[in-house]
Amino acid sequence: MLDHPNADYRILTAADVPAYLAGLPAIAGRLGGQPADWTCQDVADGNLNSVFLVDGPAGGLCVKQALPYVRVAGESWPMDVSRAFFEFSYGQRIAPFVGRLAPAIHHFDAAQFIIVMEKLSPHIILRRAMIAGEHHPRVPEDVADYVAAASFYTSDLAAPFESKAADQAIFARNTALQRISVDLVFTDPYAVSERNRITAPLEAWAASFRADIDLKAAVTRARLTYLTRAQSLLHGDLHSGSIMVTQAETRVIDGEFALVGPSGFDIGNFIAHYVMAWYAKPFHESGATSVGVFRDHLAADIVLFWDRFEARFLSHWRGFAGAADGLPASHFSGPAGAARAETLRRAYVADLFRDALMFMACKIIRRVLGFAQIADFLVITDEAVRALPQAAALAFARSVLLYPERYGDIAAIVAALPRFDAAGLDPAVTRGE
Amino acid sequence: MLDHPNADYRILTAADVPAYLAGLPAIAGRLGGQPADWTCQDVADGNLNSVFLVDGPAGGLCVKQALPYVRVAGESWPMDVSRAFFEFSYGQRIAPFVGRLAPAIHHFDAAQFIIVMEKLSPHIILRRAMIAGEHHPRVPEDVADYVAAASFYTSDLAAPFESKAADQAIFARNTALQRISVDLVFTDPYAVSERNRITAPLEAWAASFRADIDLKAAVTRARLTYLTRAQSLLHGDLHSGSIMVTQAETRVIDGEFALVGPSGFDIGNFIAHYVMAWYAKPFHESGATSVGVFRDHLAADIVLFWDRFEARFLSHWRGFAGAADGLPASHFSGPAGAARAETLRRAYVADLFRDALMFMACKIIRRVLGFAQIADFLVITDEAVRALPQAAALAFARSVLLYPERYGDIAAIVAALPRFDAAGLDPAVTRGE
Repeated sequence: MLDHPNADYRILTAADVPAYLAGLPAIAGRLGGQPADWTCQDVADGNLNSVFLVDGPAGGLCVKQALPYVRVAGESWPMDVSRAFFEFSYGQRIAPFVGRLAPAIHHFDAAQFIIVMEKLSPHIILRRAMIAGEHHPRVPEDVADYVAAASFYTSDLAAPFESKAADQAIFARNTALQRISVDLVFTDPYAVSERNRITAPLEAWAASFRADIDLKAAVTRARLTYLTRAQSLLHGDLHSGSIMVTQAETRVIDGEFALVGPSGFDIGNFIAHYVMAWYAKPFHESGATSVGVFRDHLAADIVLFWDRFEARFLSHWRGFAGAADGLPASHFSGPAGAARAETLRRAYVADLFRDALMFMACKIIRRVLGFAQIADFLVITDEAVRALPQAAALAFARSVLLYPERYGDIAAIVAALPRFDAAGLDPAVTRGE
Repeated sequence: MLDHPNADYRILTAADVPAYLAGLPAIAGRLGGQPADWTCQDVADGNLNSVFLVDGPAGGLCVKQALPYVRVAGESWPMDVSRAFFEFSYGQRIAPFVGRLAPAIHHFDAAQFIIVMEKLSPHIILRRAMIAGEHHPRVPEDVADYVAAASFYTSDLAAPFESKAADQAIFARNTALQRISVDLVFTDPYAVSERNRITAPLEAWAASFRADIDLKAAVTRARLTYLTRAQSLLHGDLHSGSIMVTQAETRVIDGEFALVGPSGFDIGNFIAHYVMAWYAKPFHESGATSVGVFRDHLAADIVLFWDRFEARFLSHWRGFAGAADGLPASHFSGPAGAARAETLRRAYVADLFRDALMFMACKIIRRVLGFAQIADFLVITDEAVRALPQAAALAFARSVLLYPERYGDIAAIVAALPRFDAAGLDPAVTRGE
C-alpha cells in the first residue's frame, strides 16, 4: 500500500516540472524538443492538488501532484497523498470501458504521488462553460455513456463477484477522500460546523435544515446507502467541475474519490450540478440565447442524460454474454426467463433512479450549506442575490428528499424545477411542493 | 497477503502434531508434560479442514489446518488455504465483542495455515445434540448475543466508517469461500449441477424449483443483497455445525467464511437450521421428551433467538455513545431527535428481519437440493422417508421467498412450520401456503 509522504516526496513547483519530466524520457518525448523549450503553467483549480500544464514543440502533458493537505484550506487540513494512487488505479480500471471519455494516463509516480496524463486542450471545465453561457450538447450523452459503462462493467452484473471484490480490496483503503464525502455531503450541512460556508441570507434555511427531523432521517438513509450499497466502482466526485469539454469531446477527470459504492451516487451528482446551473442561470450569461432557452437546454440535458444512461445500462446488460454472478443466465433461460430477466433489469434501474434522486438532493444541499461551494453560485457576488437561486435549489432538494414518491421519473424532476424558482428566503413558506 | 501453499507447507497428520506443537513452547506449555505424554486425535468433521485434538497432562488444544482442497470432495476440488488467515483475522476482530462465545485463539501459523486454539471439551456440535434429542436452552440467547454484538460493533453504526472499510480491505480477499456461498447457496440448487445431491424422491421438487421463475427472481434479490449489502463483518457460515455446546456454554467456531456483508445472513442461517431440525425431528431421537415437546422447544428457541437478537442489537445501539457515521448523534438531539432515532433503529432492525428470512429460505433450499447436505436429514437413511421432512422444509422456504409479506414477525414463522409438515412429494400440491 502506498502511504503518506516519504523521505523522497517533495512538493513540485512549476519551475521543477521540466526537470522532473526530463527524467521520464519515454513520456517527455511527447513534448518534443528539450526542457528549455517547454513552458509550464500552474493551473490548479480544484480543492486538493497541484496541476501543471506543460507544452513543448510536439505536444502537451498534464502533471498532477497530490499535496499532503487540502489546497484550498492550507496545511491546517492534512490529506493523505495516496489519493493519487487511487485516482491512477481508478483510471486504469475503467479505461477499457470508457475509452476516450477519460484522459489517457501516461505515468504514475508512487513516491511523488504524481500522475502524468494527457493535456486536455482546448478543453475547458464544464462548469465554466455553463456559467459563461456556452451550451455543450454532447456532454449529457457522453457522461451517460461513461457512467453506464463504468457502473455496469465494474458491477457483479458483468463479472464473477471476485472482480468487484478485488476493487473493494483496493478502494476500501481510499478512506481519506471518502471521509470528505461522509462529512461534507452527509453530515456537516445539517449541523453547526465551522467548515460550513453559508450565504448570510440563507441562515434561516440552514437553521430550518438543522431542525428538520424528517429531512435528517432521509439523509440518514442516503448516508447509510452510500456506506453500505457496494454495487460498482464509482468516480465518487462526478460534478461539472470534473468534466472537461469542447464542442466535440468530453473527458471525465479527477477520479481520486473512487470507491465501490451505490451506482446512483455518480448519476445523482451529475444531475445535481445541472439542477444548480439551472437555478443560477438567470444570474449568469446565457450566450447567444435567452436565459429561458439556455434553461430549456439544461432541463432537456437532464432528461437526455438519464434516458441515455438507462438505455445504455440496459443495453450493456441485455447484450452481456459472459460469466457474472448478479443475474446468472442459467436461471433465466427460455421466453419466460428472458421476460423475467428483463423485469429484473428494469427494477434494478428503477432502484438506481431512486438512489440517484436521493443523492442528487444531498449533493445540492451540500453545495449550498456546506464547505465546498461552487462557482455557479459564487460568481453571483451580491449575497442577497446569490441566496435566491440557492434557496430555490434547497427547496427543490428538500422536496425530493421528503417526497420521493412525487418524483417517479426524470420528467417529474425537470417539471418541478420552475415550481421552486421563487422559493425565497423564508424556508417555512413552501411554494410548489 | 498470505497466499497459496508455499514451499514450507505440508499437510499435517495426527502423528506430526505433537512435534509441531513442541516447536511452539509457549503454547505447548498449556498441554503440560512432554510430547510423548500427548495424545492426538483426528476429528475432522466439517467439509474443508484437518482438525486435531491434542491432550496433555495439563490441558488440551485444538489444531486446525486448512487443506489445499475441499476435504470431503478430495483433491479434485482445490481450495485456497488462505482461508485460515481469514478465520484467524475474523476471530481477532470479533473477540472484543463476543468474548467467551468464541474459542480462544492461541496461535496462527502463516506458512502452514494452522490455527492453534482452545480445545472445546466436553462441548459437542449443536447439530449432533439436536439429532440426539438433547435440548440446549442456552444456545439461542448465546448465539443471539454473539450475532447482535458482532453485527452491531463491526458496522458503521458503531464506528467511524474507516473501521468497516479496513475490514473490507481484508475480507474482500476471502473470495475462495465466498465463491462457495455464491455457487452452492444461490446458484446451483436452481440449476442442473453435478455438485447437487438430491434425495431421489425429491426430483420433482428439484425440477419445479429449477422451473420456478418467481422463486429464482426472489433468489436473485437474495444473491444481489448478499453481494452488495456491506453492513457488518459476518461469520458467513453460522449454522448448527459451527456451534459447540455444553449445557452451560456455547462457542461459535469456524469463521473462515467471514465477509463484510448483510447482517441478516448470519441470522437467517442460524434460524434455517433450527427450522430444518424441526422438520427432521419426528425421525430423530427426542430425548427425554416427546417429539412434540422437542419441536416446541425448537420453535420457542427460534422466537427466543430473534427476540433476544433484536433486544440486544437495539440495546447496543441505544447505549452507544462513541463516534459513528451510520446515525450521527448530532443530527438527532433533543426529544424529537431521540424519538426519530429510535424509529430509524427499529426500521433498521425490521430490514434485518426481512433480509434474515430471505437468507433463511435460501439456506434451507441449499441444504436440501444442493451439495452440502446436513446430517439432520442424512441420518434418515431411507430416502423415501428422508424426502418427507426435506419436502416440508422446501415448501416452507418457497413460501417465505414467494410471499414475504405473510411473514411479518418471528411468530408468523414458527406458526407456519406445522402447515408445511405434510407438504409431500408433489411440489404442485400446495398445502398451507
